[in-house]
Amino acid sequence: MTSLESIQQLIAPELKALNERITSSLTTSNQLLNQVVETYLKTKGKQIRPILVMLSARLLGNGAINDDVISAAAGVEMLHNASLIHDDVVDDTKLRRDRPTINSIWDNHIAVLVGDFFVSTALQQAILTDDIRIIKTLSNLGKTLSLGEIDQIYTAQNHILSEKAYMGIISAKTASLFVSCVEMGGYAIKANDEAIMILRQFAQLLGLCFQIRDDIFDYFEDPKIGKPTGNDLREGKVTLPLLHVLLQKDLPDNEKMTALVRKDNLDNDEIATLIGYARQHGGIEYAYDTMQRLRNQAIELLNIFPPSDTRQAFISIFDYIIARDY
Amino acid sequence: MTSLESIQQLIAPELKALNERITSSLTTSNQLLNQVVETYLKTKGKQIRPILVMLSARLLGNGAINDDVISAAAGVEMLHNASLIHDDVVDDTKLRRDRPTINSIWDNHIAVLVGDFFVSTALQQAILTDDIRIIKTLSNLGKTLSLGEIDQIYTAQNHILSEKAYMGIISAKTASLFVSCVEMGGYAIKANDEAIMILRQFAQLLGLCFQIRDDIFDYFEDPKIGKPTGNDLREGKVTLPLLHVLLQKDLPDNEKMTALVRKDNLDNDEIATLIGYARQHGGIEYAYDTMQRLRNQAIELLNIFPPSDTRQAFISIFDYIIARDY
Repeated sequence: MTSLESIQQLIAPELKALNERITSSLTTSNQLLNQVVETYLKTKGKQIRPILVMLSARLLGNGAINDDVISAAAGVEMLHNASLIHDDVVDDTKLRRDRPTINSIWDNHIAVLVGDFFVSTALQQAILTDDIRIIKTLSNLGKTLSLGEIDQIYTAQNHILSEKAYMGIISAKTASLFVSCVEMGGYAIKANDEAIMILRQFAQLLGLCFQIRDDIFDYFEDPKIGKPTGNDLREGKVTLPLLHVLLQKDLPDNEKMTALVRKDNLDNDEIATLIGYARQHGGIEYAYDTMQRLRNQAIELLNIFPPSDTRQAFISIFDYIIARDY
Repeated sequence: MTSLESIQQLIAPELKALNERITSSLTTSNQLLNQVVETYLKTKGKQIRPILVMLSARLLGNGAINDDVISAAAGVEMLHNASLIHDDVVDDTKLRRDRPTINSIWDNHIAVLVGDFFVSTALQQAILTDDIRIIKTLSNLGKTLSLGEIDQIYTAQNHILSEKAYMGIISAKTASLFVSCVEMGGYAIKANDEAIMILRQFAQLLGLCFQIRDDIFDYFEDPKIGKPTGNDLREGKVTLPLLHVLLQKDLPDNEKMTALVRKDNLDNDEIATLIGYARQHGGIEYAYDTMQRLRNQAIELLNIFPPSDTRQAFISIFDYIIARDY
């Protein structure tokens, strides 16, 4: 059993309640929509975000997960999936999680509308809690996520090479989601603000590592994630491994490589050259070192909580995120 | 001065506050996004939806429009615009209100993200009111709108010819927005539920007529709206004028025309034939008669309110919506 599977087992009844809630909230009188939803929900993904909502509620409460936790978890999972559905339209992605996407089975029109439908259903779940903090968190999250993506496009188009800008983008587009998860879990069980604040910091570090790990995939050919190597670079996105290497001005060919990365519309050979450069000069190792550093900071934060299977689950999920190969 | 212009004059300071609010809420530290927002906001449209929020607050309150009314009006206008932005991506529309669309100036990716950004900013405006009824109304509205659009696609794909189905669709995709507007205006000034209920019924009839009038445009060539005649039919959507004529089984050629409309992917000649058939057999007149009937019911409802410039404005806006030629 992987560490993620043992966490899933720890909260199995809650995950079952979550998936029932997601299905029932997305079921309507419209046959076409029901067909789309049913097909889509066949591939659940890892559900790391709702798991974080639940683990937060468990750690900050007394282990019991109430109905508001399920609502918040369902809300965040549907908001996340809405952005995946919209991403697939925009990137014209045909496969996700080894299955055909909504835009490939139906069309872009249906996929955009279904994404919008997921967003409003997510908000309805937050509203069910009647807790204005949860409603605000989910709504602010929607704004931060779209802003993060637009920031990333701006940074890519303008070839801004800065580790601070990179961290800002992955904080907005990925870590914000993880932070919102633990916040909402805490709000749902009326935890005290100080404990929530500690877990927020943990989730921020976890989210950064999640994205750094995700970005590393782009430096390797891996059929499992269904993405060709160098996809990010093709869109002008310079992620941590290459960024780090380019920022070391004393490396051989640095000037030439920096000029190359600033070119618009890189071809396959140019992408291969840049990826090779990052790998050859320790870019991947630097990214792993960064994750390890953030991981140690994060685990340190957990020390204020007494040992428990839930506290251990937070550590396991961090290690899983760094070590995962898909 | 048109009747719409005189209404706009009646609430000019409030409309100014609305547009300032919309601009400030959409302004961020992201230069690219600010550029998109600035370009987009140059073309405001008629702003009928926020006008309805304000008129509702004026009619049900004592004429004064508070800050919550502005927040609700800004929320509904931004949600409406989000769906226009997404529609333009899906339909690959190059021009709206005589100006290039976001997807045509930038690209689909930016346009989908900006639409999502508008949705979450809209919700933040609703949340500012701290009134759970307003938050719920806006969030439910988002769900109803996307459901209405998906219903329409289903009905078109399955060639369902029923006036009841047509009315259900335009109720969900258009009238629901008008109903939400007057509800939120009433909630924002804490009006009594009974008065809100009357205005809801009025707004429902207004919304149906808005869509029926909109659908009639498709039967005529009009460069002002920038749409070729028969656009709806090209997507399989059978609107009221043609629907009514097709449902009269004793008309000459009815069987032939009904078979034709059930064909997928109609060509230009077939579309011209069907439009000619609807016009020749009184389809347009029937749609106008329907609007007149709904208009009279709606005006009747207003009698419970004492005469005032605001009550008159509701009548004017109804007549404007039926008579408008764009």
